[in-house]
Amino acid sequence: MGVTHPRGFSAHGLTAGLKPSGKPDLALVLNHGPHKAAAGVFTSNRVCAAPVQWSRQVLVDGALQAVILNSGGANACTGPEGFADTHATAEQVATALQTAGHDVGPIDVGVCSTGLIGVRLPMDKISVAIPDLVRGLSTDGGALAAEAIMTTDTVAKQSVAIRDGWSVGGMAKGAAMLAPGLATMLVVLTTDAVADSSRLHDQLAAATEVSFDRVDSDGCMSTNDTVLLLSSGASGISPAPSDLVSAITEVCLDLALQLVADAEGSSHTITIDVVNAASTADAIEVGKSIARNNLFKCAVFGNDPNWGRVLSAVGTTAAVFEPDELDVSFNGVQICRAGGIGEPRELVDLHDRQVSVVVDLHAGDRRATIWTTDLTYDYVRENAEYST
Amino acid sequence: MGVTHPRGFSAHGLTAGLKPSGKPDLALVLNHGPHKAAAGVFTSNRVCAAPVQWSRQVLVDGALQAVILNSGGANACTGPEGFADTHATAEQVATALQTAGHDVGPIDVGVCSTGLIGVRLPMDKISVAIPDLVRGLSTDGGALAAEAIMTTDTVAKQSVAIRDGWSVGGMAKGAAMLAPGLATMLVVLTTDAVADSSRLHDQLAAATEVSFDRVDSDGCMSTNDTVLLLSSGASGISPAPSDLVSAITEVCLDLALQLVADAEGSSHTITIDVVNAASTADAIEVGKSIARNNLFKCAVFGNDPNWGRVLSAVGTTAAVFEPDELDVSFNGVQICRAGGIGEPRELVDLHDRQVSVVVDLHAGDRRATIWTTDLTYDYVRENAEYST
Repeated sequence: MGVTHPRGFSAHGLTAGLKPSGKPDLALVLNHGPHKAAAGVFTSNRVCAAPVQWSRQVLVDGALQAVILNSGGANACTGPEGFADTHATAEQVATALQTAGHDVGPIDVGVCSTGLIGVRLPMDKISVAIPDLVRGLSTDGGALAAEAIMTTDTVAKQSVAIRDGWSVGGMAKGAAMLAPGLATMLVVLTTDAVADSSRLHDQLAAATEVSFDRVDSDGCMSTNDTVLLLSSGASGISPAPSDLVSAITEVCLDLALQLVADAEGSSHTITIDVVNAASTADAIEVGKSIARNNLFKCAVFGNDPNWGRVLSAVGTTAAVFEPDELDVSFNGVQICRAGGIGEPRELVDLHDRQVSVVVDLHAGDRRATIWTTDLTYDYVRENAEYST
Repeated sequence: MGVTHPRGFSAHGLTAGLKPSGKPDLALVLNHGPHKAAAGVFTSNRVCAAPVQWSRQVLVDGALQAVILNSGGANACTGPEGFADTHATAEQVATALQTAGHDVGPIDVGVCSTGLIGVRLPMDKISVAIPDLVRGLSTDGGALAAEAIMTTDTVAKQSVAIRDGWSVGGMAKGAAMLAPGLATMLVVLTTDAVADSSRLHDQLAAATEVSFDRVDSDGCMSTNDTVLLLSSGASGISPAPSDLVSAITEVCLDLALQLVADAEGSSHTITIDVVNAASTADAIEVGKSIARNNLFKCAVFGNDPNWGRVLSAVGTTAAVFEPDELDVSFNGVQICRAGGIGEPRELVDLHDRQVSVVVDLHAGDRRATIWTTDLTYDYVRENAEYST
């Protein structure tokens, strides 16, 4: 399952002691080849963590052989010392892999961290755990790795897209700060397809653009968002580029929806379809304006189909539309028609977790879907009581 | 007090029955002259209510003699019928004032509404109440008017700036959807200064820009935000333009801070000072990015000085700064220095309602202050349980 479903990959996860809870907190994914082409997309937050800076840098040559991920600390805003910690982690992983007979250098090791910003990682614990992590690597270790990267996630997130003789696998962690600017959260994808390394970044970017980039749980962009894709080529099969993009997108979309379904404290998953927009960019802008409107999100928590709050959000955008042409439906009931009162709001039942909001701009033929969640007591509680 | 402190104004407020609670919900402010110069700034939300469209239109000639305001219904997204309701209200006010001996036409009557979006106003109740409203007008009726425009406000909001022989008065209602794009909420300002009508709009805009425009309670921009300024000239004194701007600004700032202090469900008033910015626009952008960050707002509710969430918000902006030069202080304790760990966070006590956050961008000599509130259980409750 997950990252170890495609051939040529092993993984492991264990407890290094970074989390006070004693839950697993360190994961490793190894690409056994024969190829090592890789790509990554990262947060566009200008305040980005040391591991993001490191991984971006080592990906310049388009290759990675291993990724180490820790929960229990973001290693963000930790200065030059934090960057040195990330560098040391990669060095130690390379040394441990070399000891185990793998030809891996530190610049072939990506690093991802998640947890509290502004705190140094306990490097002594990580150093002690790395040899164990390497010893535990297994071709069915994907589930253990997926578990070890959880923070406030309540379930581990894995996905696989199976094609004829090859596949794409993935794992993700999410929970809060879910408003990716370019990529999102921590995600590792693997494939045994033979990939054209010169195209791999564009293929990954195309997939994340319509999946993770369309999720906006709480409007907050993380300092650590990372999506890495490793290809082993172990299947020996070279799919058409569009087929590879399609499989990567399938896994990204499945993981993105798993992230929304498990977003911190949420009680509704809200699918916002903006249709008949003049451009895709307009549709995205309108969708995100609604997804980020706290009053709308509170209303959904209260099972209130408050379309006035939808319109007041749409009205803040620069999208092409006429206010008196806007239609809004909640769960199939068009309660706002031509910018005014439509069907009775009593016809809308919002008690299920899944809520569908459709906004018709009547301005063209483009569309986009944005996924978000409601704003609940539990969201406030989780983010007021715990430092994450 | 309030709008009736300056000479030449009377006001009244009463219960017309628009609110199920039976609390006062209809207010009238009358300018007795001799002058009737007026100015207004309105929401920049493209979905704007019928009364905003009406008031913007009748202000084209730079004059107003009366303003009628109702709570209990926003008259937004109500189509042509809603606009006709606003028009009828102005006609009825003019007729009632004429009956009482005042020479006022409907285009001299501004209209403001606040309450639930997407519901028609009960015009029968308003029509019945208007003659009583006119009969009740009094030169000390400012407090009754301020009370009648409250929605989820817990206290009425009035302010006065007294100068040598003239003054500026004002009243406001706020509570939620506090993120003005140009103006904010419902605010009526009065002055007995002799004002230059050609300058009045610019003077009002200058005042709102550094007061209401710097408030961002929940990132949600209303469809009904309106600030109206009426000048009677009854003092016979013509202050220097800069003195008039200063007095208007004083009242706007006082009302803006009263709005933040009473924002829905808030338990902290947060003053965000962004200093040493390359431009005022940069300082405002950075301040608002923090004010709109739900994770930061939850942390303050939990008395957690989570500077990592401040930096992650700052990092989403296009402002000029280097991430490794950012300093952040909470209540005077610099817990983030040079983009990394500063003083121990345990030194910060956030139990008082007033919280000060200072962000130093080290990029210039400009600054701005943004006021916001925390994100609490009560905010979610008020906006999930009640349609407003």
